[in-house]
Amino acid sequence: MELLRAGLEDPRAWKQAVDAVSSFLPEGVFYFTEEGARLSAIDPSQVVLVDFFAPKNVFTEYETADASIRVPLDLGEYTKILSRASTDDRLLMVLEDVNLFVALERSDGSLRREFYIPLMDVPDRGADISPTGGTVTVRLLARIFKDALKDAVLFSSAAVLVARGDVFMVEAKGQGGTARTVARRGENVSIEGGPEAVSMYSLPFLQNIVRPADPDSFVELSFGSDTPLKVSYAVGGVNLTFYLAHMIL
Amino acid sequence: MELLRAGLEDPRAWKQAVDAVSSFLPEGVFYFTEEGARLSAIDPSQVVLVDFFAPKNVFTEYETADASIRVPLDLGEYTKILSRASTDDRLLMVLEDVNLFVALERSDGSLRREFYIPLMDVPDRGADISPTGGTVTVRLLARIFKDALKDAVLFSSAAVLVARGDVFMVEAKGQGGTARTVARRGENVSIEGGPEAVSMYSLPFLQNIVRPADPDSFVELSFGSDTPLKVSYAVGGVNLTFYLAHMIL
Amino acid sequence: MELLRAGLEDPRAWKQAVDAVSSFLPEGVFYFTEEGARLSAIDPSQVVLVDFFAPKNVFTEYETADASIRVPLDLGEYTKILSRASTDDRLLMVLEDVNLFVALERSDGSLRREFYIPLMDVPDRGADISPTGGTVTVRLLARIFKDALKDAVLFSSAAVLVARGDVFMVEAKGQGGTARTVARRGENVSIEGGPEAVSMYSLPFLQNIVRPADPDSFVELSFGSDTPLKVSYAVGGVNLTFYLAHMIL
Repeated sequence: MELLRAGLEDPRAWKQAVDAVSSFLPEGVFYFTEEGARLSAIDPSQVVLVDFFAPKNVFTEYETADASIRVPLDLGEYTKILSRASTDDRLLMVLEDVNLFVALERSDGSLRREFYIPLMDVPDRGADISPTGGTVTVRLLARIFKDALKDAVLFSSAAVLVARGDVFMVEAKGQGGTARTVARRGENVSIEGGPEAVSMYSLPFLQNIVRPADPDSFVELSFGSDTPLKVSYAVGGVNLTFYLAHMIL
Repeated sequence: MELLRAGLEDPRAWKQAVDAVSSFLPEGVFYFTEEGARLSAIDPSQVVLVDFFAPKNVFTEYETADASIRVPLDLGEYTKILSRASTDDRLLMVLEDVNLFVALERSDGSLRREFYIPLMDVPDRGADISPTGGTVTVRLLARIFKDALKDAVLFSSAAVLVARGDVFMVEAKGQGGTARTVARRGENVSIEGGPEAVSMYSLPFLQNIVRPADPDSFVELSFGSDTPLKVSYAVGGVNLTFYLAHMIL
Repeated sequence: MELLRAGLEDPRAWKQAVDAVSSFLPEGVFYFTEEGARLSAIDPSQVVLVDFFAPKNVFTEYETADASIRVPLDLGEYTKILSRASTDDRLLMVLEDVNLFVALERSDGSLRREFYIPLMDVPDRGADISPTGGTVTVRLLARIFKDALKDAVLFSSAAVLVARGDVFMVEAKGQGGTARTVARRGENVSIEGGPEAVSMYSLPFLQNIVRPADPDSFVELSFGSDTPLKVSYAVGGVNLTFYLAHMIL
């Protein structure tokens, strides 16, 4: 009996978004509801909360046998399968009793690749999303933020984000030197709220969080002074939101 | 005294085919005869028999001082030299007493690179090619077979090849899940013989065997139920044939 | 107080030339004078003397507060910063009391990335450049020399350079075989002096020395029989000269 049937004509966005999530979560539970597919969980180190949401309209086929279908998966194995999808493959997922069936099909029907992965015994981790207390919201080109993080990582494993007036800065200090990116409000950077926000975050986590973002797309950062950071962006039609704990300045 | 003189205007096919052979055989004996150059040997693990044959017409220059010239080489060293050939290099090989002389020459004669490699003391391993008892012959686009092997390797180190009716399948099962490629008879797949063949083979060996095949060319697979597999294809004008032992299902 | 202010509209040549130097020298002292910026030092293994000189006209901005400004740096850290420059970044360096300030600025002023690296306590190593006693000067396309070194490294960690009559050769011998590049005087190779020069040098050092040279540019080699080798070439407007000790033949 089919509990779920979900298809995507172009699996690229789904694949990239799942890949982003799997870099934090070894396993996870997707819930397929009338709104779409959601996965929310805290990473094992309790530093980042991941929220993945693919609205129903992203799918070209979408049927659920119940109001909410639970699909607990080994995200490592699932990602490996998705990594095998070509751009001209149609992706179909069907939930049967104890397996998720995944098919990759060429548009001309000549070739069909089938995968079965067993459902896992994954406990639901409470992942209630609470407001971050962010006082400033910075929206900027992903390329600029990614470059700033690469600069910062030269000298430290932590970066201080600063929003002040017309300026958003990423700073890192270490024994070898100091790196600071100064981005001014303009075409590629908008800053709202204020007057000031200053918080420190782990650089490896920040880099993993923004890795799948298209460099030419925008990412949104919300934070205050000594508060967690909320990062949101879309990959294709899939919305990714991350809440990252701050470090003590 | 020159025992052999063989030249190739474009060394690419020769280079790729020798590279394929050297991934199985650390050393080998080429025989240059009136028909062309052949190397047949069983790999040290006794799992795969390799047959390499470059017909005389592949060469732009070809002279042998005897009916059959034996050239025993360290294939690792020989491959390293060939890897240094550019597309605009002419390749010349001359057998002198105890060395194979290899020259790479630019067409305008401005640059000549010369290599000498000592002949090795390689015993002739009996490599009589015997029929495999294959009951089915599948001819398919190398790209499809390579992709199927990449899918399979996600979950196992062995794959089951199945030919049945209109369908050729590659299957692999492991703890993490199951992968199955289903290719139907059509433009890119032909299936002859039958009614059915099912055998299991080592995935790393299969992947090494087809690595040098151009993805847009065809490879031919002959096998039966619990029989060895014969794989043949051409790289440039060089014919490569592999006989791979099956595993117990 | 600014002791030095030096800017480059296009930092690529500077970046590549510093990178070349840093592969031999973990730390070094730049002297900024009225002529330009120079760094001369012997590598820790005492095998190669490096001379880097960027004439003043390479810079688009150049001001020194004194006749000679000393800038001792950790070249590893400095190279990491330069590696972050994009082609559309303007590079600015300002020497303040104990830090070198480095800025990378987009032409439209929207983005500014700032770095501070502390000055190091680097002793001046005497690096008086003495004539090599080279009797032959070979000028050839960097691509040919780089290819010859790659051939040679297949069989040995040392190469013999030979200039004799119309021919320049690079030779290497090892247990696995022999490699020899024969380049004749012509469009891409000029040979002056003579009648003959034969010396042996370390291949890893030779490869590091020519790595940053554009394959389509020319490098100049001066050497005699059992003498050091002088290698010179330009990267952008920066002149690089290396003096490499010979090995006993």
